[in-house]
Amino acid sequence: MTLPDIPPLADPALATALRRRIDGKTKPLGALGRLEALMLRIGLILGSETPALRDPQLMVFAGDHGLAARGTSAYPSEVSWQMVENFLAGGAAVSVLARQHGLALTVVDAGVAHEFAPRAGLVIAKIAAGTADSLEGPAMSEAQCAAALARGRELLRERPGNALLLGEMGIGNTSAAALLLARLEGLDIAACTGRGTGLDDAQLARKTAILAQVLARHVDATEPLQALAAFGGFEIAMMAGAVLQAALERRVIVVDGFIAGSAVLVAARLQPAVLERCVFAHRSGESGHRLMLQALQAEPLLDLGMRLGEGSGAALAWPLLESACRLLGQMASFESAQVSSKT
Amino acid sequence: MTLPDIPPLADPALATALRRRIDGKTKPLGALGRLEALMLRIGLILGSETPALRDPQLMVFAGDHGLAARGTSAYPSEVSWQMVENFLAGGAAVSVLARQHGLALTVVDAGVAHEFAPRAGLVIAKIAAGTADSLEGPAMSEAQCAAALARGRELLRERPGNALLLGEMGIGNTSAAALLLARLEGLDIAACTGRGTGLDDAQLARKTAILAQVLARHVDATEPLQALAAFGGFEIAMMAGAVLQAALERRVIVVDGFIAGSAVLVAARLQPAVLERCVFAHRSGESGHRLMLQALQAEPLLDLGMRLGEGSGAALAWPLLESACRLLGQMASFESAQVSSKT
Repeated sequence: MTLPDIPPLADPALATALRRRIDGKTKPLGALGRLEALMLRIGLILGSETPALRDPQLMVFAGDHGLAARGTSAYPSEVSWQMVENFLAGGAAVSVLARQHGLALTVVDAGVAHEFAPRAGLVIAKIAAGTADSLEGPAMSEAQCAAALARGRELLRERPGNALLLGEMGIGNTSAAALLLARLEGLDIAACTGRGTGLDDAQLARKTAILAQVLARHVDATEPLQALAAFGGFEIAMMAGAVLQAALERRVIVVDGFIAGSAVLVAARLQPAVLERCVFAHRSGESGHRLMLQALQAEPLLDLGMRLGEGSGAALAWPLLESACRLLGQMASFESAQVSSKT
Repeated sequence: MTLPDIPPLADPALATALRRRIDGKTKPLGALGRLEALMLRIGLILGSETPALRDPQLMVFAGDHGLAARGTSAYPSEVSWQMVENFLAGGAAVSVLARQHGLALTVVDAGVAHEFAPRAGLVIAKIAAGTADSLEGPAMSEAQCAAALARGRELLRERPGNALLLGEMGIGNTSAAALLLARLEGLDIAACTGRGTGLDDAQLARKTAILAQVLARHVDATEPLQALAAFGGFEIAMMAGAVLQAALERRVIVVDGFIAGSAVLVAARLQPAVLERCVFAHRSGESGHRLMLQALQAEPLLDLGMRLGEGSGAALAWPLLESACRLLGQMASFESAQVSSKT
């Protein structure tokens, strides 16, 4: 499989010009706080002192997980396809937020265990009807993993705009994300495992024990793509492909929560410069997310205790990215507005 | 002076209905985190299970401070009127953000030391050309304080909509806000005093020493309105009047940062039920804001290290309030979307 080389964004001249532009705006130095770092980041990704976000694409990758049959989730696997229907019918949180912010919403069936009727807004890119049980063997074959990555790249390539917002749906996918985090970062699985959609204490203990067994079953799967194939899922692999392609094309990548973070983690361990193209939307309430954000050296924009997935955090954070661009482009300078500077 | 009685929002039936509605949405229980508390709050303020925000008014109250002549700010007082011109010309951060989010922006000259040419978007409601030096005597007379409060109420009453976003401008007004916080909460002035627009360590020490003297000068000004008159400023008093009126009319009050918080603190110490109508937009980088938020029992939505004022934090947080209403109104329920519930 060929994966793209992602070069660093190194452009010290543009960085200096952006910093000068930000500092010249009619506000005390640094008074826009982390929005200023956001302006700098978006400017560097889009290669402009006055970046403009165009045609943002919110892609929700969906897939089912063989391991979920062992009871790692509070909800049954059929909720994956039911929620895909809900996304498309416009009744899910992400549907509402995408409408609010004018985000083009595409739902991608990366591997849901259900046959969907084709329709607008749905891309059927099914690798298989759910991954295999990762306690029995790898969740996906190497060929399936490669196909998912390639399809993710292709889907992104076909889409317009210069921003990608990541979303996902898949009953059981906090397990896959926790396994990827634990393996790729060498962390204790208990610290990476959370309540997902709402496990109680006993169920959480059971989930953690199962995930520890899965890790032990795949002790040799240490490289990013090996781990991805071993633990799944199809939606995470396809998302990782989309992330790599978006990074190559210098799109702004808005990372949602724990599951989207695991796809970015895989992509970043393959191509570290991916992270320069990322904006982290929010700190999830899922307990492993803290460690994941540390692994990604990420400081997210929002911290509202959300743990819904779907891309809901990415969509909520979107207006802040828009604000950053507008402030950079439209705010007056001390000079242009004839405002006195510091005494 | 007559100030309105603000009754508590006590409506347990509506609260129960809202909680049931939120819990029935297609998401795990609590998965929208603090957005769920926001839905509940807006629903209770507007008295509806499906609240809708209408004609949001962003009012930026501006005033000058006599104490600023003593060097308590990094910028000269003339910046107050220059920034008012910048707001009206559309080049300030708050101008950009108000355009982005469709907020009606009104700049109120509550007491700037400058004669403005009348124009659209500017209300000249000047009580005086800046407050008096609070180290010499009260910043404003009792009559001026009452006039500012009454004018703030009147301005709000004239405006449409069911949401008020608070903003302000006034060189020297972090001093007035710190003094109000220290006096009304019985806190150490050093803990309440911050760098404002960018004081260095020596300047901060000097500001703190001056504010300690001002506090000592007005040792008897312990009641909210006495303290307000003693420390100023006109923009804070007029904002407090607008807050009281907005609370009476059950508008949603979106509180910006440290200065707006001081106006809400005064209003809340007069009428505690004001706080039930408030949504706190952000945690400011101004150091005293942490204590102010504690005093107001507030947990703000954003925490981006901003310290600009103008209502910029309130404007940035606005889409989150919109999202809360849309999610409450438009998300499907498990039943309506035929999604399976927990196993």
